[in-house]
Amino acid sequence: MASYGDSDVVNRDAFRQAVVNTLERRLFYVPSFKIYGGVAGLYDYGPPGCAVKSNVLAFWRQHFVLEENMLEVDCPCVTPEIVLKASGHVDKFTDLMVKDEKTGTCFRADHLLKDFCKDQLEKDINVTADKAAELKHVLAVLDDLSAEELGEKIREYGIVAPDTKNPLSDPYPFNLMFQTSIGPSGLSPGFMRPETAQGIFVNFKDLFYYNGNKLPFAAAQIGQAFRNEISPRQGLLRVREFTLAEIEHFVDSDDKSHPKFCEVSNLEFLMFPREKQVSGQPAKRLRLGEAVSKGIVNNETLGYFIGRVYLFLTCLGIDKDRLRFRQHLANEMAHYAADCWDAEIECSYGWIECVGIADRSAYDLRAHTDKSGVALVAHEKFSEPKEVEKLVIAPVKKELGLTFKGDQRMVCEALEVMSEKEAMEMRANLESKGEAEFHVCTLAKDVTIKKNMVTISKEKKKEHQRVFVPSVIEPSFGIGRIIYCLYEHSFYTRPSKTGDEQLNVFRFPPLVAPIKCTVFPLVQNQQYEEVAKHIAQILTAAGISYKIDMTGTSIGKRYARTDELGVPFAITVDATSSVTIRERDSKVQIRVNVEEVASVVKEVTEGHSTWNDMLSKYHNPSALDDE
Amino acid sequence: MASYGDSDVVNRDAFRQAVVNTLERRLFYVPSFKIYGGVAGLYDYGPPGCAVKSNVLAFWRQHFVLEENMLEVDCPCVTPEIVLKASGHVDKFTDLMVKDEKTGTCFRADHLLKDFCKDQLEKDINVTADKAAELKHVLAVLDDLSAEELGEKIREYGIVAPDTKNPLSDPYPFNLMFQTSIGPSGLSPGFMRPETAQGIFVNFKDLFYYNGNKLPFAAAQIGQAFRNEISPRQGLLRVREFTLAEIEHFVDSDDKSHPKFCEVSNLEFLMFPREKQVSGQPAKRLRLGEAVSKGIVNNETLGYFIGRVYLFLTCLGIDKDRLRFRQHLANEMAHYAADCWDAEIECSYGWIECVGIADRSAYDLRAHTDKSGVALVAHEKFSEPKEVEKLVIAPVKKELGLTFKGDQRMVCEALEVMSEKEAMEMRANLESKGEAEFHVCTLAKDVTIKKNMVTISKEKKKEHQRVFVPSVIEPSFGIGRIIYCLYEHSFYTRPSKTGDEQLNVFRFPPLVAPIKCTVFPLVQNQQYEEVAKHIAQILTAAGISYKIDMTGTSIGKRYARTDELGVPFAITVDATSSVTIRERDSKVQIRVNVEEVASVVKEVTEGHSTWNDMLSKYHNPSALDDE
Repeated sequence: MASYGDSDVVNRDAFRQAVVNTLERRLFYVPSFKIYGGVAGLYDYGPPGCAVKSNVLAFWRQHFVLEENMLEVDCPCVTPEIVLKASGHVDKFTDLMVKDEKTGTCFRADHLLKDFCKDQLEKDINVTADKAAELKHVLAVLDDLSAEELGEKIREYGIVAPDTKNPLSDPYPFNLMFQTSIGPSGLSPGFMRPETAQGIFVNFKDLFYYNGNKLPFAAAQIGQAFRNEISPRQGLLRVREFTLAEIEHFVDSDDKSHPKFCEVSNLEFLMFPREKQVSGQPAKRLRLGEAVSKGIVNNETLGYFIGRVYLFLTCLGIDKDRLRFRQHLANEMAHYAADCWDAEIECSYGWIECVGIADRSAYDLRAHTDKSGVALVAHEKFSEPKEVEKLVIAPVKKELGLTFKGDQRMVCEALEVMSEKEAMEMRANLESKGEAEFHVCTLAKDVTIKKNMVTISKEKKKEHQRVFVPSVIEPSFGIGRIIYCLYEHSFYTRPSKTGDEQLNVFRFPPLVAPIKCTVFPLVQNQQYEEVAKHIAQILTAAGISYKIDMTGTSIGKRYARTDELGVPFAITVDATSSVTIRERDSKVQIRVNVEEVASVVKEVTEGHSTWNDMLSKYHNPSALDDE
Repeated sequence: MASYGDSDVVNRDAFRQAVVNTLERRLFYVPSFKIYGGVAGLYDYGPPGCAVKSNVLAFWRQHFVLEENMLEVDCPCVTPEIVLKASGHVDKFTDLMVKDEKTGTCFRADHLLKDFCKDQLEKDINVTADKAAELKHVLAVLDDLSAEELGEKIREYGIVAPDTKNPLSDPYPFNLMFQTSIGPSGLSPGFMRPETAQGIFVNFKDLFYYNGNKLPFAAAQIGQAFRNEISPRQGLLRVREFTLAEIEHFVDSDDKSHPKFCEVSNLEFLMFPREKQVSGQPAKRLRLGEAVSKGIVNNETLGYFIGRVYLFLTCLGIDKDRLRFRQHLANEMAHYAADCWDAEIECSYGWIECVGIADRSAYDLRAHTDKSGVALVAHEKFSEPKEVEKLVIAPVKKELGLTFKGDQRMVCEALEVMSEKEAMEMRANLESKGEAEFHVCTLAKDVTIKKNMVTISKEKKKEHQRVFVPSVIEPSFGIGRIIYCLYEHSFYTRPSKTGDEQLNVFRFPPLVAPIKCTVFPLVQNQQYEEVAKHIAQILTAAGISYKIDMTGTSIGKRYARTDELGVPFAITVDATSSVTIRERDSKVQIRVNVEEVASVVKEVTEGHSTWNDMLSKYHNPSALDDE
């Protein structure tokens, strides 16, 4: 499958339909509670889907937790309100919603506006060039629109409820967390966690101690997360409950170098820096080492994780040509974030964010320190006391409040995080002119700071240790999204032997294949069936998953059935001392002794040998006919 | 650790305190959201606890899912009301609660009564023999008391709220499910699932198809479950969120034999059949084959799972002398259940139910068939049509209702499930005498059935297939409880070398040990540290978890630290070409070449060799001094 162009909508939809049909028919996933009509945004993984997920998570543990000696934790989904108040989710984890004023049906405001603009652009032949430009502009700034702006556009374009054509309410924020109540009193509100990260942050102190009070270290967590989407769509990509795998790498903000960066610095892949996006240029292949040394990627540790994520995804079978790392634009990023890159995978729905890799600076630990009163800090003991000159920035909140009103907090925060250079320049200006111009990026404007609004000083102190809040670099993996994209990238069709039908194949690497091999007696006879059972026993003992099919169905049909499940190897019992192993994609077969079969499959599926190694070892000129 | 007698309360508490202290200090688990004061009944697994859990679950998958070719599925936690209405949870998943009438604090009514009786028996020296007998009787029947009976006892004994001494409300049922709302409308109530089983039942039709429409087959699911306990206590044993691993084995109720039963029939272990419990006899070692052939265990399939559960738990390191299988008493069992056994593990809290193994007959599939209207049935096609005589039992609900009022449903259900023999006897009696005595076990009494209350007939039909609702046998594992008991069974202390302190050890088998080995340079020098790093790299490549400790702490202290984490092997670098490996419990060491170290540890931890094999292979007369 090549990439889809804008004009490929039909192909794209047809391709998706073929994949999704196969996935649902073979029980990779199905809508949850189907016999009761299902629930939007909830899906079950059936046996092959569940096995793929297990394999992806096992590899994630191997690739990240084990290889980097991370501290894995496992925290509950039920979370008390105070924790999510501190993290900002109670106040800000919202989407803008509109209601059908007659039926009460809810919609995401941005979805309706987006669908309207796209429809106009695609279907309305009377759209003028000016109007088209305007619609395109709306689509481009969609994520930045406020409730008021969205409401204005909806009114201006006369957008109504999709099915009923009824008028819509003004947009208002809807919190996306599932709310519940902890304990029987009804007095302790709680939520189902919207991410796993908070469980790690609140344990920082214990984890830091567990790590011998040393930085850097990373903690990791795999678990369910919940978002009560207003109107879920796009199948597995936007769901109400999903598995996240998150890493919080804690690091001294003064030193974000990484000792193993050299192991990934020569990787080259598609990157899409902020500048390219803004100037309308395409993503470009870059060497990771260069991206870091040129400052395109903020620091080595962030770069290291980008490299590791690239390796993780491509090992799973994600097509490297449909994988890019896109940097967040300034307006996408939280004001505290130092830098942020998304691993985006292209599928029939477009480019989908599957992994977010963010340098969140010290924000999260600070937020929980403030709310809980427990200092989530690291200490660096000096070998001897140091004379330190400390920059002290003390905003005068009252004066700032009088002048900036509702913007006071933003201005205050921006003053506090000034670099030493900025602060010294401001002090000089305040002393010479009595005021200074100051750019507040969270307000996206310049303000004038007067002398009475802030004091900036340098104090000398003898210090025995440095106490600081570590920065956190957070790679966060949406496992379901990765798996869905993997399905699309692995799917292809090929003609049956007779040419009268198209057969579906998933080309999963053995690592993720839900079942590693099948065992087929070529024909139904007792001797072959006994050999098949014997092989099955050896496979079980070796810990290799398999499927045994003793039905009298033609061998071609049995191959086709398992190709559709992505089973990489098929063992056909056509003799009692030796059997054939057929590789799924090439359909090439080798002949192997019964007692060696399990070890051959184990070697190849565990990656100790390749299929090519086996081809040269078990040269086999006269293979069985495939279908 | 031997078993605890009744008089061992103090020892038991002290032992538990020692275990729990070690577990919390070493971050096996900690109360969740600790920096915010925690939430009762919610715990985090820290790094070693999380690793133990991963290992237990991986072994569960190997031992059950892979070895039995089960169909593993993965369903959401968020569940719509209708599903749990059908399963009975919305109406019946309750505990009886009382409220402090002034403060509103909630308590479990049975807990208060239990505590009161125990206190009186243990602490009040004035209790008469009669009174003591009464209190013991209350404790024995505690689980059977209705809300009214509980309320009566609470009033009779003058039980008040524990801290405030305020009066208590009457007991009333509190539903233990966490409630939430699905979607933005507020009109779709949902719950966090109280068990994972329902997700399997509602998918029965698809899973049966996936299995080639053949019985028996088993589906399995590992996942979070939620119970909003009124007042959680007993640490990890009674929590509000926990991991369940459940199997639903679907089988033709006419044939519950199991082809692999012979593989477990010679196992012998503690069993506690209903009769022994009722007659006050102790649990007894029984051969499983005998228990099934004598009808103590209802059928082979149930017996097979009991045997497999025994193997699972003892492989994990559960002490077989503190493990018993206890049969449910008639009043503990749901009326539809054919038989039910709990794997109970003895720990400092007493005998704890850790795995339930129930033959639930066709109840669950029937309930969802009724509610959803989708027939969850199996078909057995006959090779040629069969003349079948079918027993038809048609209770006349109206007449039954007039006579039995509230008991109508129970009588009706009991009539419907009569065996052919019972039904024919009843028909004969109804015809000859106009009425028949009938024992309704769910009411625990005999009732008189009149001729107008039921028609019993036999009809002849030509059938091409048999359509039936499969029975389900359900082994359900409380993973957190198993792990906690494993901690207690694995914990011991031994004196330090100098004898001045007691050191803690967890004797985890390598299979479950959170970390498989440690790497210690004996002294801080560059050469040894490089060897240590080299070994670490080989271990990573081999997929073996390890901890490296380069601190200059004495080797004895470093051993003690890792013994406390249950790490089975310590690799000490005391030379550049060879190193020592020390086994945790025996403290015996062997000397192994640097390049062989990883494969030795891998062999032993993966169970391909034993430590004794290694001892004879790497004979080593002059071992390093341990502490």
